[in-house]
Amino acid sequence: MRKAFAFEQLQRMIGGACSLERGFAIDGLATLSSAGPRHLSFLTASKYREQAASTRAAAVLIRASDVDLLPATSLPWVVEDPYLAYASLSACWQFRSVEQDSSRSIAADARLGEGVILGPGATVGAAAVIGDRVRVGAGAHIGAHAVIGSDTELRAGVVIEHACQLGQYGLVHANTVIGSDGFGFARNAQRQWVKIHQLGTVRIGNFVEIGAHCSIDRGALDDTVISNGTKLDNQIQIAHNVVIGEDCALAGCVGIAGSTSLGDRVMVGGGAGILGHLRIADDVVIAAMSLIAQSIPSAGAYGGAFPQMPQKHADRSAAVLKQLPSLRSRLMQLERLVDQPSGERSE
Amino acid sequence: MRKAFAFEQLQRMIGGACSLERGFAIDGLATLSSAGPRHLSFLTASKYREQAASTRAAAVLIRASDVDLLPATSLPWVVEDPYLAYASLSACWQFRSVEQDSSRSIAADARLGEGVILGPGATVGAAAVIGDRVRVGAGAHIGAHAVIGSDTELRAGVVIEHACQLGQYGLVHANTVIGSDGFGFARNAQRQWVKIHQLGTVRIGNFVEIGAHCSIDRGALDDTVISNGTKLDNQIQIAHNVVIGEDCALAGCVGIAGSTSLGDRVMVGGGAGILGHLRIADDVVIAAMSLIAQSIPSAGAYGGAFPQMPQKHADRSAAVLKQLPSLRSRLMQLERLVDQPSGERSE
Amino acid sequence: MRKAFAFEQLQRMIGGACSLERGFAIDGLATLSSAGPRHLSFLTASKYREQAASTRAAAVLIRASDVDLLPATSLPWVVEDPYLAYASLSACWQFRSVEQDSSRSIAADARLGEGVILGPGATVGAAAVIGDRVRVGAGAHIGAHAVIGSDTELRAGVVIEHACQLGQYGLVHANTVIGSDGFGFARNAQRQWVKIHQLGTVRIGNFVEIGAHCSIDRGALDDTVISNGTKLDNQIQIAHNVVIGEDCALAGCVGIAGSTSLGDRVMVGGGAGILGHLRIADDVVIAAMSLIAQSIPSAGAYGGAFPQMPQKHADRSAAVLKQLPSLRSRLMQLERLVDQPSGERSE
Repeated sequence: MRKAFAFEQLQRMIGGACSLERGFAIDGLATLSSAGPRHLSFLTASKYREQAASTRAAAVLIRASDVDLLPATSLPWVVEDPYLAYASLSACWQFRSVEQDSSRSIAADARLGEGVILGPGATVGAAAVIGDRVRVGAGAHIGAHAVIGSDTELRAGVVIEHACQLGQYGLVHANTVIGSDGFGFARNAQRQWVKIHQLGTVRIGNFVEIGAHCSIDRGALDDTVISNGTKLDNQIQIAHNVVIGEDCALAGCVGIAGSTSLGDRVMVGGGAGILGHLRIADDVVIAAMSLIAQSIPSAGAYGGAFPQMPQKHADRSAAVLKQLPSLRSRLMQLERLVDQPSGERSE
Repeated sequence: MRKAFAFEQLQRMIGGACSLERGFAIDGLATLSSAGPRHLSFLTASKYREQAASTRAAAVLIRASDVDLLPATSLPWVVEDPYLAYASLSACWQFRSVEQDSSRSIAADARLGEGVILGPGATVGAAAVIGDRVRVGAGAHIGAHAVIGSDTELRAGVVIEHACQLGQYGLVHANTVIGSDGFGFARNAQRQWVKIHQLGTVRIGNFVEIGAHCSIDRGALDDTVISNGTKLDNQIQIAHNVVIGEDCALAGCVGIAGSTSLGDRVMVGGGAGILGHLRIADDVVIAAMSLIAQSIPSAGAYGGAFPQMPQKHADRSAAVLKQLPSLRSRLMQLERLVDQPSGERSE
Repeated sequence: MRKAFAFEQLQRMIGGACSLERGFAIDGLATLSSAGPRHLSFLTASKYREQAASTRAAAVLIRASDVDLLPATSLPWVVEDPYLAYASLSACWQFRSVEQDSSRSIAADARLGEGVILGPGATVGAAAVIGDRVRVGAGAHIGAHAVIGSDTELRAGVVIEHACQLGQYGLVHANTVIGSDGFGFARNAQRQWVKIHQLGTVRIGNFVEIGAHCSIDRGALDDTVISNGTKLDNQIQIAHNVVIGEDCALAGCVGIAGSTSLGDRVMVGGGAGILGHLRIADDVVIAAMSLIAQSIPSAGAYGGAFPQMPQKHADRSAAVLKQLPSLRSRLMQLERLVDQPSGERSE
């Protein structure tokens, strides 16, 4: 499925300097830690120096100043903006999904197990594999190369994008989307956004239930993962490369930003938001409508939200909240004054 | 539509002790307050003791220690974990909805009124009843046994799940889902989630408008209800067994958790969240992005959100907000000191 | 497409006094600033006095007390509640969209460019115009009179409502809805909601990417606008008459209320909410889960959210937050006391 490109083809697109042979075949893009010897990777910030030191990539898009961070086995490909170069090259490996012939609802090479029930208007893309006893609701769409485990049910209007994988005994509620593109863009010199094509997929375990109107984005390079037994309520946004452990429960309207990982049995209250690149430990409980902006290394209950008050009271508290830093300074000043002997003060 | 099961069949699934006759036919599961004499109910927490005392259920799944709470007419069915037992039994009465024959878009026994317009690709399930002059958008799906009142319009991609009921003169915007399963699970001894099949429906009154991408979950046992004249904006999440009064207006992205009730003419600002099992009085106004965590017994404006500031300022205020309890203590300490006669202090 | 109504027809619906000739043909409703000489407009609050003074409308629905605000060229149409009168008249110009013949998936008068690919089950309404090489996913719906620019891709289940316009090289992810009705209602004397039919459309520029499950509402009278190069993540709610500049990036779950405008290159963090009728300057960055309640006149980072804490700590901080106004008063009282000469205090 993944095509190879000769180094010189890619270099013609983005320029830069690299001592790879012109005909060297690059199989794809990969992160520093998952790259193999025919992959191209990229280093965008020196905080990834550890992964750089141990990467197996054939070459790494890199700034001139970072070249020393690479191991001897990985050649530097020196460019001005490695992230932008990666974005430009990502288009080479993008999956063109809407190429189905409209005259066929079920692609000729799709494989359907025994006892599969397809609702009216359901559509199945090329080479998709659908397990035994899977039920597909009216108008649902299973993309090319997708895999649906046995005994799973997709309700009406569900969209499984190309190459995504669902496990067994799953249930996905109406109009949910699994495998939409992650939100990845690099800024060019004109401050416009250049799309980073999302080359990963979504992998979902067994006994997973997903509510209505959830958006589970595919990974940028690696996959987005939801593990066995986890349950998602409605209207949940899971960004690219999020990894969710087993037996978690996420209430409605939760949003999780890119590359964050949740351990097992994590519970997230409705409307909570978790920023990207965080690690949430097993058995953490997050309160409704909290913003989680830092990793949580051990089990326990976390959160926080502005408390409910009569509106006028809330407005007054919010006004004072803005003054908090100065109020604290004034309190400290008072403490200094009161702490002094009274004789000194009255001078 | 609802099947009956002999007591001994059910007992084989979950065990426990009960003096019901082996052949006693149980018609279904019900809450303590809505159960009839052929229903099985359950008591999970002693805070429901009042409902227990007046239940008409044939039998009640209950802990041994709570048996005294039942009236003489309801037999105890003693189990270790009544909620988990209820979850297990809920599967007996689940509605299997995706059993349509894919060769028919409109089920043979669906009843369509006069002047109904069905867009291309619209599908209608078994025994659904569609009123006069209803307009159904392209690709919309009306589930089995659903009822749509006359002069109502469903836009493209709307999904009405099985047995849900919409009133007259309604308007539902594209890709909204009405009747997805409520988010109900019980934890077993291995801390895995066991599905509580959602056996209620959704009932929607007349002159109700519902925006795009709303998820209105069906009730667990009783129904989820939206009353006449109420208007919902886009992306609203209504959990199972929520009851919304007449002429309410809910702005976009609002989420309401399970079993909460709103009175008449309640207005909810965008992005606000209301926790479960609360009661919001008539004519309450809730501010945008507020978390409502307690019932509101009388009309008025309520809410509260962290105020907008330049980011650096916000970060400083948030840091001090974390210290508020200790700052208050220090203030009280100062008050004590300053209140003392100065002579005493300087000793 | 827009019909004309004689003044006397309209007056029969809402009453009120106006010296327009009975047969004067009114082409449509418009805002004060965009109205032309055959339009009817309305003035609801005297804060719009400036727009009123320069309006070109034939007549303006207005309270008797505001009549002096109009220029000589615009006749007053005096009614008790101009907003309610406008809502009632809006029904005259509503677009009836679900009138397609279900036997045709692609309307006979739709115009498809070269190389268009339509997925299985995709539907196209009357007089829609689809540019060259547009790809339309399975089950997607393009409404009547909509226009899709060349090289744009709509994924499965996308709904483009009637008369909306998308530019070139766009990408819209699965199940997104563009052109649903804005949330507009006027309250009548019985405190019921009267629908304001949404007569504007949505206009989207080139190189715009829109995630899954976004709801972009059509304008009430003028259009909702998203400009070239802007990128939207999933689950974003854009209300009627919002105007978004070029090269903006909005993360998942953002909500923007009606008539707010964003400049160019604005970045909005996940879950943030922006209230209506605000102006956000170019290059503003808004933090995740912030509530923006005031316009932001110049570039910079803005926001603020309740900080993450262990739950117990958060509960204590929230409790003190409620007391902030009184704590500030007590601090000021202490400052007065400590500031006094000690001799005076100990009296």
